[in-house]
Amino acid sequence: RSEPSDEVEIPLPPPTNPPTRVLDIDEKTPDAHVPRDPRLIRLTGVHPFNVEAPLSALFNEGFLTSPELFYVRNHGAVPEVKDQDIPDWEFSVEGLVERPLTLTLRQLIAEYEQITCPITLVCAGNRRKEQNQVRKSKGFSWGAAGVSTALFTGVAMSELIKKARPRKGARYVCMEGADKLPNGFYGTSVKLNWVMDPNRGMMLAHGMNGEMLRPDHGKPLRAVIPGQIGGRSVKWLKKLIVTAAPSDNWYHIYDNRVLPTMVSPDESANNPKWWHDDRYAIYDLSTNSAVAYPAHEEQVCLKAGPEKYRAKGYAYGGGGRRVTRVEISIDKGQTWRLADIDYAEDRYREAEQTLFGGRLDMSWRESCFCWCHWSLDIPTLELADAKDIVVRAMDESMNIQPKEMYWSVLGMMNNPWFRVTISKEGDYLRFEHPTQPALMPGGWMERVKKAGGNLINGHWGEKLDGEEGKA
Amino acid sequence: RSEPSDEVEIPLPPPTNPPTRVLDIDEKTPDAHVPRDPRLIRLTGVHPFNVEAPLSALFNEGFLTSPELFYVRNHGAVPEVKDQDIPDWEFSVEGLVERPLTLTLRQLIAEYEQITCPITLVCAGNRRKEQNQVRKSKGFSWGAAGVSTALFTGVAMSELIKKARPRKGARYVCMEGADKLPNGFYGTSVKLNWVMDPNRGMMLAHGMNGEMLRPDHGKPLRAVIPGQIGGRSVKWLKKLIVTAAPSDNWYHIYDNRVLPTMVSPDESANNPKWWHDDRYAIYDLSTNSAVAYPAHEEQVCLKAGPEKYRAKGYAYGGGGRRVTRVEISIDKGQTWRLADIDYAEDRYREAEQTLFGGRLDMSWRESCFCWCHWSLDIPTLELADAKDIVVRAMDESMNIQPKEMYWSVLGMMNNPWFRVTISKEGDYLRFEHPTQPALMPGGWMERVKKAGGNLINGHWGEKLDGEEGKA
Repeated sequence: RSEPSDEVEIPLPPPTNPPTRVLDIDEKTPDAHVPRDPRLIRLTGVHPFNVEAPLSALFNEGFLTSPELFYVRNHGAVPEVKDQDIPDWEFSVEGLVERPLTLTLRQLIAEYEQITCPITLVCAGNRRKEQNQVRKSKGFSWGAAGVSTALFTGVAMSELIKKARPRKGARYVCMEGADKLPNGFYGTSVKLNWVMDPNRGMMLAHGMNGEMLRPDHGKPLRAVIPGQIGGRSVKWLKKLIVTAAPSDNWYHIYDNRVLPTMVSPDESANNPKWWHDDRYAIYDLSTNSAVAYPAHEEQVCLKAGPEKYRAKGYAYGGGGRRVTRVEISIDKGQTWRLADIDYAEDRYREAEQTLFGGRLDMSWRESCFCWCHWSLDIPTLELADAKDIVVRAMDESMNIQPKEMYWSVLGMMNNPWFRVTISKEGDYLRFEHPTQPALMPGGWMERVKKAGGNLINGHWGEKLDGEEGKA
Repeated sequence: RSEPSDEVEIPLPPPTNPPTRVLDIDEKTPDAHVPRDPRLIRLTGVHPFNVEAPLSALFNEGFLTSPELFYVRNHGAVPEVKDQDIPDWEFSVEGLVERPLTLTLRQLIAEYEQITCPITLVCAGNRRKEQNQVRKSKGFSWGAAGVSTALFTGVAMSELIKKARPRKGARYVCMEGADKLPNGFYGTSVKLNWVMDPNRGMMLAHGMNGEMLRPDHGKPLRAVIPGQIGGRSVKWLKKLIVTAAPSDNWYHIYDNRVLPTMVSPDESANNPKWWHDDRYAIYDLSTNSAVAYPAHEEQVCLKAGPEKYRAKGYAYGGGGRRVTRVEISIDKGQTWRLADIDYAEDRYREAEQTLFGGRLDMSWRESCFCWCHWSLDIPTLELADAKDIVVRAMDESMNIQPKEMYWSVLGMMNNPWFRVTISKEGDYLRFEHPTQPALMPGGWMERVKKAGGNLINGHWGEKLDGEEGKA
């Protein structure tokens, strides 16, 4: 490892074009104070605001995502905080501590060391539409763009907890936001041991890609919990509460869980024990990947085109674990090819500098908290003979995406092999992704279901008789 | 969590019956000084000594394994250390450090805090025989008993490294044993960052279940690296070397790797680049499980027997991650049942005491470094209608065992669903495990292959036509 230097070229945010006007569609909602990008795809009607970018638009931005395309998961109305009030935003550190603290954002910035770090956030529901195609879950239909990356600036969460001095018996840090919801303020918890572990990199952030957090992303202060599902990164943060038990917040109990697959929606509604078993709470992300190109409905001309097609996509691991391989099959998993991986995050490790007012120093850390991009050149003629492209990633702990979907009642953490189908239409190849987000029609899963196929027959619903080709 | 107390009943080692005599078979080998238990199954002929216990015998011992049944992976001859020389065993901490140390085991015990902790070790080759049935790998045939648990006593590795004071640029800790092999002393490395992380619990151990390490287990001093493959827990430890790069020891490079699945034995032999890519080195274990009962060739009488059969087995996660569910299917994965899990390791968390001369204090730690045992009652009549029992585990990061095998050239980290077949013979059900260890015949994989089945057709080699029952 070479000496740290200011000379290393680190990825910087893509050009941003901050929305300045409130969209007509938002005018009659409680979010009428929030300007937004019209490209975002709304997943839960007009309000609350839950959105992902079109997958190609997200991927084309590169490693870092501009705040206006960064996915959003809001449970209710966005708290309104005027710019002049930001420095006075108050939050507390309380509970099982010797020295409870209340401080303002002004103090947080003035009195604590500021750090900057690239972190990928992923919604636990990323790719949930696929689960909903197999069997309706209790969650709305994310496509594969519930993932975004930014440079966050703020303070290590451990600094505040240390200052407050946890008492004997303290094991959890609960977080609570300012978003008042039908079941109380949004809140959740993580383990105190994790908060104190520098390798886990948990922070309180006020900056995102060098600017103040925007309203949908927690303005003016949020938790950022790297390597874990987005649902733990509480926005509009008001409280850190050190406790002996996990959060009893409604959203901690009834959201962000993978119940065992045999628990049906009815069973989960009738039997609260499933929700109160902390073993089923989701913390780390699991290994996942998706294809960005070929895009859904992309066409490739077999005549006059280039000899090779460059397939591209993303992959990420959980809990700071690096994706160590991405493999592609064009024969349904019988044989695999190794994709190239670009880990842009690694380029920051060589740098040691101040960025956006925070110290960027990842040289000492072994964990990976960002997505990577993969690519593979495939001869076009081979694609023309194939029925599909599937991709799977494996992390440094040899956790691999399975072929089978693990369906669960909330439809979270969906991570089977990502499959794009290929159909030959005259001189063209046409590609289909598994689904399209929200209620948008399209995708091979919908098509297969309509044709009477059983999506969980182990062959993506294809008929086993009459199967052509190399099956 | 209740107050720590001495009253908690913690699992203690099973009765041990230390072998006192050298077996005839060992008399002509370099290990003629090592008494051994004749029940152990030899996996590589007579010498070197690589063994696992019969799976039932291992499982019947319970949570902790007696040293005489604890699996052994030796690359060569066992260094002979006479009892009177043990206190003078010398080892060093050197390399990129301010203060290189040489100390004796006497000093290690007298001058450092002693700790005791239950830790499961697992060979990276556990269950490799299944890989060898699919396609011959470059490794010998472990069954599913390459896993054992003991209470290890010794010193946190971080204490020694701190004392030696790593210098700037230090990133790895290499370890070297006293076992001289054709390619040098056995050695490997782990990341310095991990060594210094108390949650990873790496230690130097001289005690095992309250007695001195026995010769096959590293007498008088070994590394114990919890949550990682056994191959990192260097035995007969002589050196800790702090470095800027991973170990260049032959065994670190050419062993304990999962090369990408498309790399054939020939390709791996012809192209060294595969071995030198650190991304393919194995550190953390991956999620795994196996059935102990029904045992291989066990018979269950349908007449006059009990109405329910209690299936039992083990599961473990990697990197300290807890197994949060174990699921059983008797219809080939179409539906699943939730097994009960007994995490004996948790009982030590409530205790805080001195055990075997070391401080046992796991109250502060969130990680799980031991196997768990699962069980599930299945109505015998349902078993009689089923063709097989499959089991899969999932860890707290939602890493689940896949249905498919990930074959690789060294055949390591095999962790697909563990499957036991059922055949009805008159009034009896007969069960078959996938394989038997070493060259022992038996198991459904061998039977299916002989019948011309393709083990990787996605149905364990069963024919898709003529398939009876609920398929």
